[in-house]
Amino acid sequence: MKGSVSSVNLNIEERLKEKGMALPDAPKPLGAYVPAVISGNLLFLSGILPLRDGKLIRTGRAGLDVTLEELREDAAQVVLNALAVVKQAIGDLNRLERCVKLTGYVASAEGFIEQPQGINGASELLFELMGERGQHCRSAVGVSILPLNSPVEIDFIFEIDKC
Amino acid sequence: MKGSVSSVNLNIEERLKEKGMALPDAPKPLGAYVPAVISGNLLFLSGILPLRDGKLIRTGRAGLDVTLEELREDAAQVVLNALAVVKQAIGDLNRLERCVKLTGYVASAEGFIEQPQGINGASELLFELMGERGQHCRSAVGVSILPLNSPVEIDFIFEIDKC
Amino acid sequence: MKGSVSSVNLNIEERLKEKGMALPDAPKPLGAYVPAVISGNLLFLSGILPLRDGKLIRTGRAGLDVTLEELREDAAQVVLNALAVVKQAIGDLNRLERCVKLTGYVASAEGFIEQPQGINGASELLFELMGERGQHCRSAVGVSILPLNSPVEIDFIFEIDKC
Repeated sequence: MKGSVSSVNLNIEERLKEKGMALPDAPKPLGAYVPAVISGNLLFLSGILPLRDGKLIRTGRAGLDVTLEELREDAAQVVLNALAVVKQAIGDLNRLERCVKLTGYVASAEGFIEQPQGINGASELLFELMGERGQHCRSAVGVSILPLNSPVEIDFIFEIDKC
Repeated sequence: MKGSVSSVNLNIEERLKEKGMALPDAPKPLGAYVPAVISGNLLFLSGILPLRDGKLIRTGRAGLDVTLEELREDAAQVVLNALAVVKQAIGDLNRLERCVKLTGYVASAEGFIEQPQGINGASELLFELMGERGQHCRSAVGVSILPLNSPVEIDFIFEIDKC
Repeated sequence: MKGSVSSVNLNIEERLKEKGMALPDAPKPLGAYVPAVISGNLLFLSGILPLRDGKLIRTGRAGLDVTLEELREDAAQVVLNALAVVKQAIGDLNRLERCVKLTGYVASAEGFIEQPQGINGASELLFELMGERGQHCRSAVGVSILPLNSPVEIDFIFEIDKC
């Protein structure tokens, strides 16, 4: 079991390469908190924004300033940042047993109800990178506004091996 | 202990019958995620909407399109859907040790501040069905808009037996 | 290890005194739920409002009715209330191993994006009172409206010793 877990997870960074992607630097917290906390074999991450090279890819609300396709791209960037935080926290993505839970907050204009389709940009990338172990449960909600005027913020719970 | 746990939990489906209710089919995910994930003895559910026969009972925001009484009914429907997801995930509601946590998101019009009273529709039904083991902690917040224009979305953490 | 944990945590009530603060009475739930639930060595709290002597310090939205400095003060009050709930739930703050996760909901006016700076009022106080063990991960989001028209609501996950 342990062997197969490791071999599956070894693929995350390889799969990123195959997709022409790379782990970014882990984003720095925006306040007096830490990016990740381990309790037992749960790894909790702080809410993550779609920062790229230290800046939001774009700002504003889905359905007004941000299209669904842009929201999907932002959600995928959040996953890259999340994996960077995980690597920083536990040293090795091989230690990820699975993704347990995502909570996706989408800054939403009046009438925008496609939060699930937007957050799919994150969920689909997790599945591509982690296979079955990337299958998670999820809530997606529309909020009025997010830090830095970000279109999306996602927090994550992962399960890691016990060592 | 195990015995009393089982006998308490056996009552959930019986109590539903007594109340003239039945477990619906588990709702299907709206995106690239799964309805439930088990990690250790925690069972995390995805955010659940008040779907009935595959459709929302109603749409819109509490305090504008949706009355408090309707919101309470919606929240109770969410519990039925959640228990259907639990049964699908672990096979037997007897395995539920307790409900740990609810997060209730209420699509709220300007000035609507009765999120707790609305989410009580879920909390009270859990207590009626599960007794002490249905007592949970809870957050209730007002959000601008939810997937499918649902009035409410609730996510759940349950504790299950270890087997 | 256990020894050092206890000695660190013993300081919480002492440090409160040094700062001229005291644990308030634990706030009562606003609905059909309980203030705290223990599962394994995780302690989940219900969403907590900045009540003082049974009343909100103020009402309204950050960026409109509530300044950033007031929001910070409200967030600090939430921490005092949370610690009161913890003490009620586990009897002794010495049993706190660490703060794992905060989710901060800020009722936000159009254009207010300083949710992180506001929730820092909670995070900084936790760090002052608990030191390294107060370091947590965190999400901060802007919502349209909160129960009782509160400017802020925070929920907490703590880790406690197993006994």
